[in-house]
Amino acid sequence: MLPGFLTRAVELLLGKEGRSLHLKAAGGATAVLGVVMLLGSWAVVAAEHGARGANLTTYPKALWWSIETATTVGYGDFYPVTLWGRVVGSVVMVVGITTYGLVTAALATWFVGREQRRRHHLAHGAEELGEEAVRALHERFDRLERMVAGKGEDPGRR
Amino acid sequence: MLPGFLTRAVELLLGKEGRSLHLKAAGGATAVLGVVMLLGSWAVVAAEHGARGANLTTYPKALWWSIETATTVGYGDFYPVTLWGRVVGSVVMVVGITTYGLVTAALATWFVGREQRRRHHLAHGAEELGEEAVRALHERFDRLERMVAGKGEDPGRR
Amino acid sequence: MLPGFLTRAVELLLGKEGRSLHLKAAGGATAVLGVVMLLGSWAVVAAEHGARGANLTTYPKALWWSIETATTVGYGDFYPVTLWGRVVGSVVMVVGITTYGLVTAALATWFVGREQRRRHHLAHGAEELGEEAVRALHERFDRLERMVAGKGEDPGRR
Amino acid sequence: MLPGFLTRAVELLLGKEGRSLHLKAAGGATAVLGVVMLLGSWAVVAAEHGARGANLTTYPKALWWSIETATTVGYGDFYPVTLWGRVVGSVVMVVGITTYGLVTAALATWFVGREQRRRHHLAHGAEELGEEAVRALHERFDRLERMVAGKGEDPGRR
Repeated sequence: MLPGFLTRAVELLLGKEGRSLHLKAAGGATAVLGVVMLLGSWAVVAAEHGARGANLTTYPKALWWSIETATTVGYGDFYPVTLWGRVVGSVVMVVGITTYGLVTAALATWFVGREQRRRHHLAHGAEELGEEAVRALHERFDRLERMVAGKGEDPGRR
Repeated sequence: MLPGFLTRAVELLLGKEGRSLHLKAAGGATAVLGVVMLLGSWAVVAAEHGARGANLTTYPKALWWSIETATTVGYGDFYPVTLWGRVVGSVVMVVGITTYGLVTAALATWFVGREQRRRHHLAHGAEELGEEAVRALHERFDRLERMVAGKGEDPGRR
Repeated sequence: MLPGFLTRAVELLLGKEGRSLHLKAAGGATAVLGVVMLLGSWAVVAAEHGARGANLTTYPKALWWSIETATTVGYGDFYPVTLWGRVVGSVVMVVGITTYGLVTAALATWFVGREQRRRHHLAHGAEELGEEAVRALHERFDRLERMVAGKGEDPGRR
Repeated sequence: MLPGFLTRAVELLLGKEGRSLHLKAAGGATAVLGVVMLLGSWAVVAAEHGARGANLTTYPKALWWSIETATTVGYGDFYPVTLWGRVVGSVVMVVGITTYGLVTAALATWFVGREQRRRHHLAHGAEELGEEAVRALHERFDRLERMVAGKGEDPGRR
């Protein structure tokens, strides 16, 4: 199951103490995707080398192929024809769409957080009001106690 | 309407008592996608068998086709040409993008939940403060009652 | 600007009083996509009719083309070659990815809402606690007033 | 790292004071995508001009290519074959999927915000109740103080 494995891998990699895991995960996945594309381009050329009908014959062509594969455009001008070339292609595809999903989710989280912080200003104000209210009630008690104490000591003189 | 049907199907399948439906839904959809891809690869070869211009002729080719179809890359090196082959292809496409949407949504929910738990530490602290404040007010009442009771019983002696 | 126009169109179409706009929007967009695909398949055949090099010549082929276009797979076995055929294709693409984005966003919202409802049980409990606390403080006032009134009316008798 | 750079770029571009950054970002990205597609179509024709095997030879063809590239459909009827043509293509792909991710994230944020506003009506009501409760407690203090003061001044007369 991808997501369970993914969340654990991300937590292991980045630790739980980070302030904004979502931005770190999106940035990390983008970096991983870059490495996978660069290494995958080299690996696919090696895997396809000498195969009948192979079109991924040079590194520049393979780099362009990795870009159109990771973005899921897939024109079909280049594609792997060997088993290992297709394994490399599958990895580029899966890492590509996972990165894209992570970036979309991180953007949503960032947007939602901003919206809530804006609205929480109000809530935070209300919280401080609560502390203020409790302080005011204690002052009323202080005053009442002074009144009761004052009457008791000297009831008729005033 | 897909989403209504989907949410009900997911709830029926997994129950409502689960702690993190979104992770279960994403994991379940990924598992379903795996099964659809494995069975779809076999089904598309059976459907295409003997058709004029068919290129999905063997299981390994069909498996590669199902990967590039589910990730929506679609190079065009393999594609179904018969009615039932295309029905199988449509199922692989729809299950693929739905799974991808579920995983993206589950990641966003997981990220948002983490962010809110971090911020709720503060809110939770404020809540405990509230209980503490109410307890303090009751102690003031106790003290005041003792004062009033003490004065009343013996007003002049003190 | 797509999103502004989109949100307004969705609100106009569905009204603001709905309980779960996100599910209605996702369901509505899925229905609109279905209509666009059915009508688009017919329109693209009409547009391509008689054009040199046209491959979208029959309705069943065009229906398959609309599925692989809306899911952004795009094998390249069928594609429009005329201006109006490409306009139809562009509409199917844009409606397709917009629907997909709406469904992903609706799933995320549904998941986030579920998570928050689970956590708000606690918050709601705290709220009721607050009302309970205020009621208890009023009872203390009632008791204290009775004490003060009792002493005042008959200070020496007790 | 894309997201960090992206968030900073978006904040620089639009300022932090905006009311709904997510809608502005989605709208802005859609506008940027439109410009990138129009300029990219022109640039790719210029880059491909005279290259062996080039198929992106006219502006209308290139515009159609930019649409199927930005939506990641990629039929493969048109694709760049030169280095600079592929650089332009990569830019169109990356801006396309980033815009799409932004729009999806903005929709999710808008949906989540709507849902929370609906549920916060309750929370807001509770807040006002809190202010009301504090005011009521102060009135009880006023009354109690008048009672204590009244008894103290004239204990036996009543």
